[in-house]
Amino acid sequence: MFQIKGCVSSKMALIVAKFGGTSVASPERIKGVADRLIKIREQGDQVVAVVSAMGKTTDELMGLAAAVNDDPPARELDRLLSTGEQVSMTLLALALEAKGYQSISYTGRQAGIETNGTHNKAKIVKVHNERIERALDAGYIPVVAGFQGIDANGDMTTLGRGGSDTTAVAVAWGIGADICEIYSDVDGVYTTDPRIAPRAHKLASISYDEMLELSSAGSGVLQMRAVEFAKKWGVIIHARSAFSDAPGTLVKEESPMEQAVITGIAHDTSEMKVTIRNVPDTTGVAARVFTALADNMVNMDMIIQNTSRDGATDISFTCPEADLSRAVEAIERVLPEIGAEGWDVDEDVAKISLVGTGMKSSPGVSALAFRTMSENDINILAISTSPIRLSMVIEAAEAQRAVQVLHTAFDLDSDSVFEETQLSAEEIADKMKKGR
Amino acid sequence: MFQIKGCVSSKMALIVAKFGGTSVASPERIKGVADRLIKIREQGDQVVAVVSAMGKTTDELMGLAAAVNDDPPARELDRLLSTGEQVSMTLLALALEAKGYQSISYTGRQAGIETNGTHNKAKIVKVHNERIERALDAGYIPVVAGFQGIDANGDMTTLGRGGSDTTAVAVAWGIGADICEIYSDVDGVYTTDPRIAPRAHKLASISYDEMLELSSAGSGVLQMRAVEFAKKWGVIIHARSAFSDAPGTLVKEESPMEQAVITGIAHDTSEMKVTIRNVPDTTGVAARVFTALADNMVNMDMIIQNTSRDGATDISFTCPEADLSRAVEAIERVLPEIGAEGWDVDEDVAKISLVGTGMKSSPGVSALAFRTMSENDINILAISTSPIRLSMVIEAAEAQRAVQVLHTAFDLDSDSVFEETQLSAEEIADKMKKGR
Repeated sequence: MFQIKGCVSSKMALIVAKFGGTSVASPERIKGVADRLIKIREQGDQVVAVVSAMGKTTDELMGLAAAVNDDPPARELDRLLSTGEQVSMTLLALALEAKGYQSISYTGRQAGIETNGTHNKAKIVKVHNERIERALDAGYIPVVAGFQGIDANGDMTTLGRGGSDTTAVAVAWGIGADICEIYSDVDGVYTTDPRIAPRAHKLASISYDEMLELSSAGSGVLQMRAVEFAKKWGVIIHARSAFSDAPGTLVKEESPMEQAVITGIAHDTSEMKVTIRNVPDTTGVAARVFTALADNMVNMDMIIQNTSRDGATDISFTCPEADLSRAVEAIERVLPEIGAEGWDVDEDVAKISLVGTGMKSSPGVSALAFRTMSENDINILAISTSPIRLSMVIEAAEAQRAVQVLHTAFDLDSDSVFEETQLSAEEIADKMKKGR
Repeated sequence: MFQIKGCVSSKMALIVAKFGGTSVASPERIKGVADRLIKIREQGDQVVAVVSAMGKTTDELMGLAAAVNDDPPARELDRLLSTGEQVSMTLLALALEAKGYQSISYTGRQAGIETNGTHNKAKIVKVHNERIERALDAGYIPVVAGFQGIDANGDMTTLGRGGSDTTAVAVAWGIGADICEIYSDVDGVYTTDPRIAPRAHKLASISYDEMLELSSAGSGVLQMRAVEFAKKWGVIIHARSAFSDAPGTLVKEESPMEQAVITGIAHDTSEMKVTIRNVPDTTGVAARVFTALADNMVNMDMIIQNTSRDGATDISFTCPEADLSRAVEAIERVLPEIGAEGWDVDEDVAKISLVGTGMKSSPGVSALAFRTMSENDINILAISTSPIRLSMVIEAAEAQRAVQVLHTAFDLDSDSVFEETQLSAEEIADKMKKGR
């Protein structure tokens, strides 16, 4: 990517290459990762590897901790979890040495990843990359443990689920890398989930904001915090497959020339809809409900308040299913105070999100989306929007069909993985006219 | 052990309790270890735990390293292996916290275990136990990772197989503990292997020297270096079961009052006998053979040179089977030089060792041993002795029977686990007279 074939004096690139748990799940795969790093070196580029723990190691360690302690103290838990990456980093360094390349592995502490003291989901506050830079200068391939850092007290911290992506971006920023390659079992960012819409195609590039909206709307390709970090510090991410050489998707600042109206469609079935029935429609009641929920750390997503009837109304909201017990506890506490009739939970809902930077300047998007749903008899339970996202909550049973019809309606269907078929604003306006 | 029942002002003891891989092999067993530590605390004593890695973790990590690198650099390997104890120490601390006891875990680095730089089998050179002592003073149960230390460069080192026993003894010495309890799946030191001689019985105590001889002769209860360390610094070891409350065996300085002639019988089938045939019986030939073997790091145990016949002789020696390839390489190299006919290997040999401090002052031991073997038609292939040990190499097929008849001949048989039936020197002399 950074080398012009046949050009001897091509510029040497500095690359951070991050490999997830699946890519280092076995000694054979670790050797494969070593081969890939060597290939980068043989192209004349410099490379720093960042690794996650092997396969399901982190889950297994969490399971062991839970088996001895229902509520493990965060500090000891972080120390336990950080061993997973120490194993994979050492094995990768050993594999590189076996293939004749000097390598040295660094823990989060040694790699200079300084975080705040919030154990289990620490935030990176500083990166001291002197050791990595010295190792590069000395001809080594440095291998850095992802997911871990060290706080001001010298205690080991971990960055939360998917934190290795964040480590990779932080290291890339720290050493001024040209690109941060994130290798996983997914070969890039698609217009939507190809398992649901077989004609989904891979995007050559996507903007940070679009990627963030897709991630928050349920697309699991990259960790959100890594993308936020990359956006903040201008690190270009290349999300690509660990098992093929095909190019993946670049995540970078959008160029004004390439704004598609709809870049992708995400779906998320991990939310539930909670309805509180017959709430007296008086001032402050909704506020009390939502304050109680917020106090219980329930991440409310959408809120729907029906039209009042006989001085009472139904209040619904959506939140992650994982928040169920905390939500129930809050509602039970507030129910007698507000005099509501009762509540029920519907876990069989899905959220479908259309994402695209061009949406800002294309008011026809929601109209086309709603008409498509209506024509296909898919009932919309709730709607929320951001400048570059339109989300609709529907019955879970309709999720797959909804993604497919929207993907077709917005002309995202493609026979070729890289065909750029996204509609322009004019084309959407045109489509709406014809439909009338 | 250190508390007089019903006595309120009993002296508080300071105990180091070490648990091997089997004792911490699962979350359930780790909780059991936590219960045992709590019991010690509730008795009014102070306790520091030392743990090995869970179950077969170290072997699994070695396997992973071997799968990516045939000859892994020792420094990276040590870092890899040291993660095993970091997992078990954290889980034990978590289990203690879950049961309402403050606990804190320390790596070898944090526990102040300073070693030399010989990776994979480092030797402890210094112990800085300030952090452990502070934690004890603050009411914590400190948990220390066994098997690992840190060298003068700040690199992680490991102490070699069974090194956690050595860590426990070193910590016990460093903090001035009253006793070092070593818990394992073996409930103490027996007069011989109870699987071979069902009437073997457990020893209430054994001297350091006897324990060292038994260990080197094949008894696997305690790691030899741990016993050497304990002897050097006068640390009393209590080898006992992790799965029962029964007392085990104390390893300590012998008292002049309790010298048994034979304390125990060890057997070892991991040796082989190598014979070099028709070696010219000229000066310096044997020296050349044994120098070549020593250069190849072959640990020769016994050497047997047959009577010369026609100016040639057979030279046999025994060594661990693990040294086979190095031994063969050395012999093949030296064979043409010395003009010997050839060589063969007999792996089906066993070494039976009688051990006892009282042997020094009891010349009848070898006579009784040889007569017992002869009466039972067991052929002795080679003999070696130390002041407190008599070893005989025999055919492996005879090993079990040899142990049994010797165990009976020296009156070690017992129906009770703790019966002290060992013969005195007078009784042995008496027995020999009657036998004539």
